Amino acid sequence: MSRVVLHNYFRSSTSYRVRIALNLKGVDYDYVAHHLRHGEHRDPAYLAVNPQGLVPALVWSNGTIVTQSLAICEFLDEMIPEPPLLPAEPGDRARVRAIAQMIACEIHPVNNLRVLNTLRSRYGADDAGVADWFRQWVHETFVPLEAMLATHPQTGRFCHGETPGLADICLVAQVANNARFNVDMSPYPTISRIRDACMELSAFADASPARQPDAE
Amino acid sequence: MSRVVLHNYFRSSTSYRVRIALNLKGVDYDYVAHHLRHGEHRDPAYLAVNPQGLVPALVWSNGTIVTQSLAICEFLDEMIPEPPLLPAEPGDRARVRAIAQMIACEIHPVNNLRVLNTLRSRYGADDAGVADWFRQWVHETFVPLEAMLATHPQTGRFCHGETPGLADICLVAQVANNARFNVDMSPYPTISRIRDACMELSAFADASPARQPDAE
Repeated sequence: MSRVVLHNYFRSSTSYRVRIALNLKGVDYDYVAHHLRHGEHRDPAYLAVNPQGLVPALVWSNGTIVTQSLAICEFLDEMIPEPPLLPAEPGDRARVRAIAQMIACEIHPVNNLRVLNTLRSRYGADDAGVADWFRQWVHETFVPLEAMLATHPQTGRFCHGETPGLADICLVAQVANNARFNVDMSPYPTISRIRDACMELSAFADASPARQPDAE
Repeated sequence: MSRVVLHNYFRSSTSYRVRIALNLKGVDYDYVAHHLRHGEHRDPAYLAVNPQGLVPALVWSNGTIVTQSLAICEFLDEMIPEPPLLPAEPGDRARVRAIAQMIACEIHPVNNLRVLNTLRSRYGADDAGVADWFRQWVHETFVPLEAMLATHPQTGRFCHGETPGLADICLVAQVANNARFNVDMSPYPTISRIRDACMELSAFADASPARQPDAE
């Protein structure tokens, strides 16, 4: 068995998700940085690990390569069941996965670096235009997400109950991204409260972009 | 216990995914159509079911409401284990989930109706511009997806082995969407072959947009 390797980038919010999950599971791993803006993830050596050339990619101790941040988190949850990232009951698991996917399938992809770059190159978007675009998709999903979290009886200190899990992982990484585009968080007191509760835990705080070895 | 209800829209590819999953699991359900272009999904009655006002949403026989198509598919897989939508081994499960997420987190969200509408309203994109945008994101992910499927030893008649699952569900729904924007599928022989194999099964064929009661 070799050491676990995480191919990632400090500022990538999908990498951030996986770093939190690895910390929650107590997995010690080697950090391999790929600088997205320098195109390092298009290196032939890295394409042999992940043909998509995207981060994150996890190389498990048995050599299994896993890509896509949510697939990596579920893989970790299956390999190391404690502490669980998902609750036990199917309806509860679905609630947590749905919250995670609201962020991972609705906000993040539309605001990804390559999409923002295409807005610039194809439609001449400037910094202000790109920031407007980014904020539009955050608000479109954060408004119902705030309502869902604020009103649901199973929302606790975290998105679901009193222990952090997959939904919190996605929430924290998204809120960190929001700060780069000056998203007004005042309409989202529940999301902000949960984010703050997470950041009190070292598993979340230690995974922050600013604390990574490739941070600028 | 009441009957299962699927809130959906014939042309929505995320609804299409869930219809396939329900068929594969042999679940008989009530079909409730919400016409996205007419804004029916913003009805107060529907917002009580899904505060996001998006389709699909599944109301299970015990009253549990599940949103987000991949969360719904995983919920179905946990409630009705046979036939499985995911393989048994964690590394294999991760491979299938990653393929599903390449489509569900990279292609579909960027090409969603509301994003295309925003391209029109904010950047004056015309039909040709919208189609170019759509095809760009398909090709960006289908090129590595084709390579991954064509070269991986566990690719079989379907994305993973000889039985259809979560990855095939996403693949078929995406290929159907591609046809609406004239995506050239000739660079993707493996994806096309798997899609054709799926469409030979009634679970997939019966879930097609054209066969739904609200089809136009």
